[in-house]
Amino acid sequence: MITDKLIDGIIQMQNPTCVGLDTLFDYLPDDMKAGATTFEDVAERVLAFNKTLIDHICDIVPSVKVQIAYYEMYGVAGMKAYYETLKYAAAKGLVVIADAKRNDIGSTASCYAKAFLGETQVNDRALKAFPSDYVTVNGYLGSDGILPFVEQCEKQDKGIFVLVKTSNPSGAEIQNMILQNGVPMYEYMGGLVEKWGESTIGNYGYSAVGAVVGATHPTEAARLREVLPHTFFLIPGYGAQGGNAEMLKSCFGGDGLGGVVNNSRGILCAYKKNGGTYYSAAREACIAMQKDLSAVIGKMGR
Amino acid sequence: MITDKLIDGIIQMQNPTCVGLDTLFDYLPDDMKAGATTFEDVAERVLAFNKTLIDHICDIVPSVKVQIAYYEMYGVAGMKAYYETLKYAAAKGLVVIADAKRNDIGSTASCYAKAFLGETQVNDRALKAFPSDYVTVNGYLGSDGILPFVEQCEKQDKGIFVLVKTSNPSGAEIQNMILQNGVPMYEYMGGLVEKWGESTIGNYGYSAVGAVVGATHPTEAARLREVLPHTFFLIPGYGAQGGNAEMLKSCFGGDGLGGVVNNSRGILCAYKKNGGTYYSAAREACIAMQKDLSAVIGKMGR
Repeated sequence: MITDKLIDGIIQMQNPTCVGLDTLFDYLPDDMKAGATTFEDVAERVLAFNKTLIDHICDIVPSVKVQIAYYEMYGVAGMKAYYETLKYAAAKGLVVIADAKRNDIGSTASCYAKAFLGETQVNDRALKAFPSDYVTVNGYLGSDGILPFVEQCEKQDKGIFVLVKTSNPSGAEIQNMILQNGVPMYEYMGGLVEKWGESTIGNYGYSAVGAVVGATHPTEAARLREVLPHTFFLIPGYGAQGGNAEMLKSCFGGDGLGGVVNNSRGILCAYKKNGGTYYSAAREACIAMQKDLSAVIGKMGR
Repeated sequence: MITDKLIDGIIQMQNPTCVGLDTLFDYLPDDMKAGATTFEDVAERVLAFNKTLIDHICDIVPSVKVQIAYYEMYGVAGMKAYYETLKYAAAKGLVVIADAKRNDIGSTASCYAKAFLGETQVNDRALKAFPSDYVTVNGYLGSDGILPFVEQCEKQDKGIFVLVKTSNPSGAEIQNMILQNGVPMYEYMGGLVEKWGESTIGNYGYSAVGAVVGATHPTEAARLREVLPHTFFLIPGYGAQGGNAEMLKSCFGGDGLGGVVNNSRGILCAYKKNGGTYYSAAREACIAMQKDLSAVIGKMGR
């Protein structure tokens, strides 16, 4: 069961860090950028950057999140680099989260679910488009836009993270609106997530249907942890966006479990701040982040 | 200005139809499907299907909506067919809507905006990833997730359609929730859309920031038409999903303007119901839809 596998990795490494491969071409060292003129050039170099980085972090970090926007902007060649990055990370034993925030009505949602979590039928062959362990989704279309993903979670032992309380400032414009019954939208959305996960609860008590809960909103995170006991959190916003270990502490239970904490720029661009090669600086940043988080969260797993 | 251009086409053809190129491989005639075993095979045939279909409708229909999920599920090869479909439709003079329902926090949203509406910088070259006239977006992350798209609308003369009231049944679980001030979420989201569009209002009085409003919800559509005077609608749900001309009438004003009406399966698969070649049946279905809509909407444009 995928969330059990993710938690096993967190306990083994005592590290709930998720490395965000939001690999903007600008993040690459100058010598890797020089002379590139086409999307194919960019895609090749971004992939090389990702692979070396993965090699240097895969023994100390249990998961990566690959943000698809940073590949889609390089066209078809970028999408090939995305696919290759997913495959390489999986081959290195990492739990792979496709951060794609997909959403649509039922029939179309089932195509997205097949693309990321399942298989696409081509006559009598079943092929995989963008194979991932989890995909992030947006719940604004309600249950019939989410259940096709849950179906693939059950069938293929995969997971999703539904946007609940996002890390950005304006998320509050929608997510903190109070409903007539006094409940804010994010908590109501969280309640739906808990329900969507009911059929997929694993050994640690968490389901395959997780929630995105920003590190930048400690009050909301504490409330969500309280009312969503079976929901595992994907926690963005640590580092560059202003979230810190103390702020996200409430996402975790007494057993030191409850979520993975994403960091993208703080790891990919660590070399720009701290010097050294990008991959050794990234490894150092992961080690520092592990220390920072475990000092606050404590021992992970009983 | 892109919405003016779209409306010019609607008035000229007296047709607010948008053909939805949700080209599932299963929709192709058997002889086009036979022998395909790879994503490349599928992509090639889907693209051929789309091109011939576009050739047969581009003189009577002003716009197409290309649903990306149906290409993404065929992997990188599918994304190439998506790109080629966008390009071919634009070359034939159609207004092209990328139905991708993208959404993320500001820095990532700006990558999506560049991918679909703008340009991606590769050293000193500016390249286009998936060039479209409009892209659909999801507003659950609030203003800072939408404004990067609006920025590209202004800069590149492009547009977006924000999900407001979707055509599927469960959309109501979120969108019809009543806020503390008595306003349902869809109307509140609509108000944000009207505001996001303020800087891009064209000659017809509609902005470049439109709203997705399902044909299946006439009451909500009537209310939204009333409170969003400058917001152009993308109206899905006609045909296979149960919406009809009478139900979507309230999306249009007294001048017969106000939105484009999407139909996917009803056009792509018309040959399965009515016989003939897929492209002649698709053309006939477009003509029938034009008649059906104009009988209810009346003359388009003053």
